[in-house]
Amino acid sequence: MEKPSIPQGTRDFGPLQVARRRYILDTIRRTFELFGYAPIETPTLENLSVLTGKYGDEGDQLLFKVLNSGNFLVKERRGEITPLVTAEDLDAGPKAVLPKIAEKGLRYDLTVPFARYVAMNRGTLTFPFRRYQMQPVWRADRPQRGRYREFWQCDADVVGTDSLLCEAEIVLMMSRVFEELGLVDYTIKVNHRGVLSSLLYHILDLPHGVTHSTTHEAQIVNESALFVAIDKLDKIGEIGVTTELLEKGFKSAQIAQTLKILSVSGSFIERIEQLDSQIGAIPTYENSRRDLEGVHEFLEASGFTPTQFNRLEFDPTLARGLSYYTGCIFEVKINNVPGMGSVSGGGRYDNLTGAFGLPGVSGVGFSFGVDRLYDCLDTLGLFPAFGETPTRVLLTNFGPETEAHTLPLLAGLRAVGIAAELYPDAGKLPRQFKYADAKGIPLVLLLGPEEAAAGLVKVKTLATGAEQTVARAEVLAVIRSLIL
Amino acid sequence: MEKPSIPQGTRDFGPLQVARRRYILDTIRRTFELFGYAPIETPTLENLSVLTGKYGDEGDQLLFKVLNSGNFLVKERRGEITPLVTAEDLDAGPKAVLPKIAEKGLRYDLTVPFARYVAMNRGTLTFPFRRYQMQPVWRADRPQRGRYREFWQCDADVVGTDSLLCEAEIVLMMSRVFEELGLVDYTIKVNHRGVLSSLLYHILDLPHGVTHSTTHEAQIVNESALFVAIDKLDKIGEIGVTTELLEKGFKSAQIAQTLKILSVSGSFIERIEQLDSQIGAIPTYENSRRDLEGVHEFLEASGFTPTQFNRLEFDPTLARGLSYYTGCIFEVKINNVPGMGSVSGGGRYDNLTGAFGLPGVSGVGFSFGVDRLYDCLDTLGLFPAFGETPTRVLLTNFGPETEAHTLPLLAGLRAVGIAAELYPDAGKLPRQFKYADAKGIPLVLLLGPEEAAAGLVKVKTLATGAEQTVARAEVLAVIRSLIL
Repeated sequence: MEKPSIPQGTRDFGPLQVARRRYILDTIRRTFELFGYAPIETPTLENLSVLTGKYGDEGDQLLFKVLNSGNFLVKERRGEITPLVTAEDLDAGPKAVLPKIAEKGLRYDLTVPFARYVAMNRGTLTFPFRRYQMQPVWRADRPQRGRYREFWQCDADVVGTDSLLCEAEIVLMMSRVFEELGLVDYTIKVNHRGVLSSLLYHILDLPHGVTHSTTHEAQIVNESALFVAIDKLDKIGEIGVTTELLEKGFKSAQIAQTLKILSVSGSFIERIEQLDSQIGAIPTYENSRRDLEGVHEFLEASGFTPTQFNRLEFDPTLARGLSYYTGCIFEVKINNVPGMGSVSGGGRYDNLTGAFGLPGVSGVGFSFGVDRLYDCLDTLGLFPAFGETPTRVLLTNFGPETEAHTLPLLAGLRAVGIAAELYPDAGKLPRQFKYADAKGIPLVLLLGPEEAAAGLVKVKTLATGAEQTVARAEVLAVIRSLIL
Repeated sequence: MEKPSIPQGTRDFGPLQVARRRYILDTIRRTFELFGYAPIETPTLENLSVLTGKYGDEGDQLLFKVLNSGNFLVKERRGEITPLVTAEDLDAGPKAVLPKIAEKGLRYDLTVPFARYVAMNRGTLTFPFRRYQMQPVWRADRPQRGRYREFWQCDADVVGTDSLLCEAEIVLMMSRVFEELGLVDYTIKVNHRGVLSSLLYHILDLPHGVTHSTTHEAQIVNESALFVAIDKLDKIGEIGVTTELLEKGFKSAQIAQTLKILSVSGSFIERIEQLDSQIGAIPTYENSRRDLEGVHEFLEASGFTPTQFNRLEFDPTLARGLSYYTGCIFEVKINNVPGMGSVSGGGRYDNLTGAFGLPGVSGVGFSFGVDRLYDCLDTLGLFPAFGETPTRVLLTNFGPETEAHTLPLLAGLRAVGIAAELYPDAGKLPRQFKYADAKGIPLVLLLGPEEAAAGLVKVKTLATGAEQTVARAEVLAVIRSLIL
């Protein structure tokens, strides 16, 4: 018999891990709800027609696809169905064949299903609609340290309003969650897609943007190359960015100009002012800086503290890969966990539901990566103490003769909400203690024949070894005082 | 553009449904933890080698299989890989082809992944191991009313002990959950696989069971046919069962004898006594009735009330389909929701982990069907009132000039744990009230320029229309008193 195993990139979670993960999820959920976000859940399986084309070519390849039925290959060979792969398919590649054998795929993120949900339920939803969603997603990525094929995301989005209050509240929610988790050494980086576009207009000498469509396409190609390169500035440095942009056809002077503009420093507002002096004349920039300033003002009025403002950084090099962002963008790093990618991010989009037939709905949202947060808390030793079991009290088992005393006590503990268990088999006290110890159960009750006859219970605290004998009538009160 | 849709048999859950489902899940979780069960979670994707052959032929067909890669068909036609379907495969059918294109499948239940988990972690687990698991499962069943392709199960199992205390605690947990949910018209049916086997031995005149392997195989076939038929007694009646058993080769006299033995009535103990008089001499029966009596005694000692005993029924016709059960079996129906199948069930098994190389581990477990419980609570109107949003307080938006007053109040509400939101856009008060109304937000705060200047806030209770103007310093206290 083969040794059982689980698929690459997936994980089992034991009791301790579930408790720790729940601690993170509950912290995030509390914050989402405090800010008025309501939970929705979407199916694990989505139609591939909903998923494909939304995540780029690479994303399409990373989708887990679910087989329509196991016997189409045999049916085809038997001539019972038309050939699955035609001559044209051979040229067209797997994309042409796929729809014939798989119509469903596993959820890849929470954003596309949310957009699909809003489009499908537009008639019954009240806008602005604030929703949060905490569910696993799947990507057929190459598994590696910290990257899994099944992992959890926690998203909150509000659609149907372009109020900057929503952007400010994203910053408030991020701060609140990190601080509640004890992750105080974080940086929330903020930028605006319009700042990046303005930068491009400026170095291409198109100060008023462009309208002609051919130019527009060229500009998008440029934009994408420029944004991808400068997003890596902190990783590959100025030389790396210069090399990459030269390869993409940018001129040395343009690159030097870009790097100069990007080298802002100081506070949030100081950085804005430095950009003002460089690209302040570009209309797109003016709108963007007004947004950034607006967010800043909302935060001030909401009591955002100086310490919190120190953790908020306007970073004009932040680009974020996702093409649907159109306004402010956010990304969070935990500074004292080196090598860890961003643990949270988001931004404003103007046409997320357009792909599903509902254009013109502006929204803004963000996401927490639960698995990375787990690793951060683990690395920094920030998890509260959780045991291998919810049980607080183990009643030792002295066999059938004492059950008439033990079982009512067990029922009594549970009736007042204290998780308790009776060791299921009689005999061998050391084994029963070993069990309590291995599970991290704090209290052990001894109720042997002598104690039963005398109406007493022995209460032992495992951590200290302290033991006390108490009257049966007082034992609930004693236990309560010991486990609080 | 195609209208977006979700796959057949799957569902989106909006805020109200998520809140209601969470209410059920939290109730079950609380009970599991009170009884010392610890949570684990297993991956959505399991290797097909783990899943196949565990659920019978029908189950294998209902497994959702995940494609290895999208381009194997094209590769095969191009001659880049060996043929996927050989001549032998044509005879062997889809089973021979499947492993070549899919190695992973979606979780089908929580029992097999649990057995796999125990076998894989045998070295580090402390036995007896009590675990619970609350996760979705997937079956490619034909969708119909009340039957979904993605649905949730909540399982609790304890392995590594054969103590009957565990069976008794299953009954206690079932009772507790149903009563907490307000489902008081339930019946927990109990039987023992040994009672059914003894019945077969009796009518086949094999009073001591059988050991010879050929006879044993014949017996298993008979057993399965007999159990399947009598399990349907309450649906198809005595005539239906007789017809079915005659077709399977049972003799009229045997069938009549069976039906006579099964027609027990009265209390749990009275029914046992009636069986005693009929099949009391069969050794297997003796062990089984001792188990049933033992469970009954544990329940009595645990303070199970007469009302609760009235809801516990020893039903010798209960068989449950799953072949791995070897001892007591359980099934629960909600009597006042006609047409609803069982909402919970379970039993003891002696060799669940044997398939994964860990033989001889006895365990007992049970499961709640969340989706059926949802339908029962919905039908009976037993859900507490949940809104479309967690928000308790909406602050109306009078525009930028009042933000310096509104935003600190909003922050203050959240700081004391009251879920609140500021309507994101200024203007049109009726629209803002309509929003609060549609979302079920109980309180609306009015903080216009006049109120801001006077240091006052108007608090309106939407349900009654009552309005009061309070000083800014008192508003938190007033709101607290109104939403408690």
